[in-house]
Amino acid sequence: MAIHPTALIGAAASIDPSAEIGAFTVVHDNVEIGARCVVGSHCELGVASDLGDGSPLVVGADALIRSHSVFYAGSSFGEGLVTGHRVTVREGTRAGLNFQIGTLGDIQGHCAIGDYVRFHSNVHVGQHTVIEDFVWVFPYVVFTNDPHPPSDVQQGVTVKRFAAVATMSTVLPGVTIGEGALVGACSAVTRDVGDHRIVSGNPASDKGPTSLVKLRDGSGRAAYPWPAHFHRGYPAEVVAEWLAAV
Amino acid sequence: MAIHPTALIGAAASIDPSAEIGAFTVVHDNVEIGARCVVGSHCELGVASDLGDGSPLVVGADALIRSHSVFYAGSSFGEGLVTGHRVTVREGTRAGLNFQIGTLGDIQGHCAIGDYVRFHSNVHVGQHTVIEDFVWVFPYVVFTNDPHPPSDVQQGVTVKRFAAVATMSTVLPGVTIGEGALVGACSAVTRDVGDHRIVSGNPASDKGPTSLVKLRDGSGRAAYPWPAHFHRGYPAEVVAEWLAAV
Amino acid sequence: MAIHPTALIGAAASIDPSAEIGAFTVVHDNVEIGARCVVGSHCELGVASDLGDGSPLVVGADALIRSHSVFYAGSSFGEGLVTGHRVTVREGTRAGLNFQIGTLGDIQGHCAIGDYVRFHSNVHVGQHTVIEDFVWVFPYVVFTNDPHPPSDVQQGVTVKRFAAVATMSTVLPGVTIGEGALVGACSAVTRDVGDHRIVSGNPASDKGPTSLVKLRDGSGRAAYPWPAHFHRGYPAEVVAEWLAAV
Repeated sequence: MAIHPTALIGAAASIDPSAEIGAFTVVHDNVEIGARCVVGSHCELGVASDLGDGSPLVVGADALIRSHSVFYAGSSFGEGLVTGHRVTVREGTRAGLNFQIGTLGDIQGHCAIGDYVRFHSNVHVGQHTVIEDFVWVFPYVVFTNDPHPPSDVQQGVTVKRFAAVATMSTVLPGVTIGEGALVGACSAVTRDVGDHRIVSGNPASDKGPTSLVKLRDGSGRAAYPWPAHFHRGYPAEVVAEWLAAV
Repeated sequence: MAIHPTALIGAAASIDPSAEIGAFTVVHDNVEIGARCVVGSHCELGVASDLGDGSPLVVGADALIRSHSVFYAGSSFGEGLVTGHRVTVREGTRAGLNFQIGTLGDIQGHCAIGDYVRFHSNVHVGQHTVIEDFVWVFPYVVFTNDPHPPSDVQQGVTVKRFAAVATMSTVLPGVTIGEGALVGACSAVTRDVGDHRIVSGNPASDKGPTSLVKLRDGSGRAAYPWPAHFHRGYPAEVVAEWLAAV
Repeated sequence: MAIHPTALIGAAASIDPSAEIGAFTVVHDNVEIGARCVVGSHCELGVASDLGDGSPLVVGADALIRSHSVFYAGSSFGEGLVTGHRVTVREGTRAGLNFQIGTLGDIQGHCAIGDYVRFHSNVHVGQHTVIEDFVWVFPYVVFTNDPHPPSDVQQGVTVKRFAAVATMSTVLPGVTIGEGALVGACSAVTRDVGDHRIVSGNPASDKGPTSLVKLRDGSGRAAYPWPAHFHRGYPAEVVAEWLAAV
């Protein structure tokens, strides 16, 4: 077990012998870290809070958690988690396989995240958000949950599989983004978005089907559905399944 | 005094014996920390800078400062400060009771903040901002101060009491947001907002009185003024005062 | 050499004897730090990654890198770099003299940055961005690079010298912002911007020449080109050159 000598590890923490823990990182007691995980420097894992249910932080095998990240107890991640730097994840977050969270990501907890979901930098996820498999979320996107802030009413956002939400967009409480839909950059999404539709603007309005967008690579191919051409970082068997379905 | 053995505490720092200081945290000399304060890991408190006036960082009793936060010397906070992770507060910030700053908050200093003010995650406060009591500010809101950047002209924003500024809104230099007003999500506020008015859009325009908004909880009650229904986290005597005034 | 006793310095790191390294900071092997540099606490410098080319992190003389910042190997900075707290800079970033990056800046790497460029807080720079000398970028600005996300097509943004991009603006892939141009706050810039033109809005549209804007200081002077009146933080010889050219 490659635990840096300056790291502080709780006596009750369960860390696989093949995992690595970086310098000046704090791992509290209520943590389970799987095989071959790599945790960077200056992290804090397994923070306790009154909002947790007593369950541990569970990090599946082969995770890479970059420096200065903070994870609370009471969340779980499937195999292959990858984070940028300075990520914050609160309690009650349930994520599937190979979740990627970019630098400065801020997950407020009590949310459900599918398999192979990718968040670019600085994504903010309010409580009660539901994100299905293969979704992409780009920098500075915010998923809100309070329809008339401040209040005790919480209506999470739902993003269906293969949807992409582009940079600096905000999705208002209770909205559902349809399967394979595209939210253009800088949009304020106030209403549900249909499957394979493009919306953009503030407030966002429908701009037609995603099939309208062509790849700017000179090929003349359609840019959406993106699984037809974009495979970087996905396992071969996942890509094969996509291509069989297209 | 529960100071973690890895914390580095300036010889001249004044820390109440009942306070706790976390692992790998640096507390410089020019710092006063009150009774029962809890400071997380990896923080730096009392950073010196040329822009300070030589006064200390003063943190009132019962504060909770979460990990990786940075506070400069020359700012003061009333009792009950609560921060998220990775908060930055520069010199010349004067805040009242029970100020709450969410994760990634960035307060540029030389600003005045009232009592019971709540900032959600990733709020940016330019110099010379004035925020009155009981104001709410939601994620990714920016208060600017330079009307024609870059310049040496600085015109701070003023937010009057009980106002709420929703997610991803930017308030332009010199603007005043009226008492109890609501700035909708993703707004660019270029002009003053009247008391108890709703504005939204880019640029923001008036959408009527806040009394138009009903709570989405099936009760048929008005959502604003929010102190009539939302009391979470406020002391009973504060709520009693609100309800007496309504 | 003032290296804090808690700092961890790689045996092969090259640090000028006049430099200072703060508490709990990690400096990896592949790093060169110039004369009189000051590195704050809790930083990590010279992070290795598969995306680097094996070249070191080179920080020119007289840099100030504030706490909790992360720099990868494979980037270089001219003299006088100044950063806020929690800055992230990935590999392949080439910056000139006196680059200033505000708190929470996130530079994705593989980009070119000129001399005397200023980024305020929380600026996000996608790969393949090109920023010329004397550019100003304000809080929460994002430079994107993927025209139909997610894809393998990358079209970086170019910002020409003396341009200013105001708060919360997003520049879409492949766009060029002209010399001395002004992008107003909260803009979504979808097309090229001409030299000395103002654009604003979502989507951004042309609002006329920058000469229309007057300084709000009672002087009646023009606000743009800003080098005629704003000199704070630039060396006298640079300002003299500007004034000779005006």
